[in-house]
Amino acid sequence: MAEDKVYAIQDDYPDNFAWCYGCGRLNKDGYHFRTVWQGDKTLTVYEPPEKQLHSGGIPGFVYGGFIASLIDCHGTGSASIAKHRKNGFEPGSGEEPPRFVTASLHVDYIRPTPQGVMLKAIGEVEEIHPKKMKVEVEVFADDTLCAKGEVIAVAMPKTFGKE
Amino acid sequence: MAEDKVYAIQDDYPDNFAWCYGCGRLNKDGYHFRTVWQGDKTLTVYEPPEKQLHSGGIPGFVYGGFIASLIDCHGTGSASIAKHRKNGFEPGSGEEPPRFVTASLHVDYIRPTPQGVMLKAIGEVEEIHPKKMKVEVEVFADDTLCAKGEVIAVAMPKTFGKE
Repeated sequence: MAEDKVYAIQDDYPDNFAWCYGCGRLNKDGYHFRTVWQGDKTLTVYEPPEKQLHSGGIPGFVYGGFIASLIDCHGTGSASIAKHRKNGFEPGSGEEPPRFVTASLHVDYIRPTPQGVMLKAIGEVEEIHPKKMKVEVEVFADDTLCAKGEVIAVAMPKTFGKE
Repeated sequence: MAEDKVYAIQDDYPDNFAWCYGCGRLNKDGYHFRTVWQGDKTLTVYEPPEKQLHSGGIPGFVYGGFIASLIDCHGTGSASIAKHRKNGFEPGSGEEPPRFVTASLHVDYIRPTPQGVMLKAIGEVEEIHPKKMKVEVEVFADDTLCAKGEVIAVAMPKTFGKE
């Protein structure tokens, strides 16, 4: 492993929570979104390949559900990395980060998002309650703003998935 | 083809707009969501298989981006099928339906959505402008409400994807 590896918050998720198709490092088929710090903002970078897996109604553009997935996972990852820092830790520290789930997701689609171009999701996190984060997200294709989103993420209940 | 086939609006999309990973009938890898009438509401039925393609962070539940995709495609399909009916046509009539794109998408996640269970997205469509539809969506796993959504869909501009 390179000395200068930039750790993402998903690198530190416990194994039993690392299966998300969007951002789970253990999901062999998934996108493997990785969320890192960029100054005081959060960043997830991804390049959708030119294939049908991401196609919109018209070939050459990604489908809306993919953009929603990117914003969703970037939102929960941003909430986790921000709460982790508030607790005194950074990705790669070996400490288990707090996990968040999405309470609500909003996406405004501004223009068609091309395939084969590097996408950047940039987030600003605001703690609106000790267990609730608001993440404002902008998605750029190269330098063109294609979508804006807002994620309300809440600390994962201990009972999650066991009801 | 069976005499009693229930046509979905996506069956009538023109070929060049039928590639969406969510609802495009020509995308060989996609979900193939199909939106039909159920009385005066719209219905899309889908059973996420028990595989990593749909996994949430915890195995056994679908990921939020999949739910967002279902609501997104159900929203644009519902807008299309409703406008088509207003124009005097039903799916399977042979007339090309109007195509809509998503302007905005909102999802409230109410509880974890299980894999391996039939999901139903049920929509109510309201025309809020001749070129803009609001679709309220509820997603049920069997009979349990798991998510609610709202899609604002606008008539696809002629320049879409050509800017």
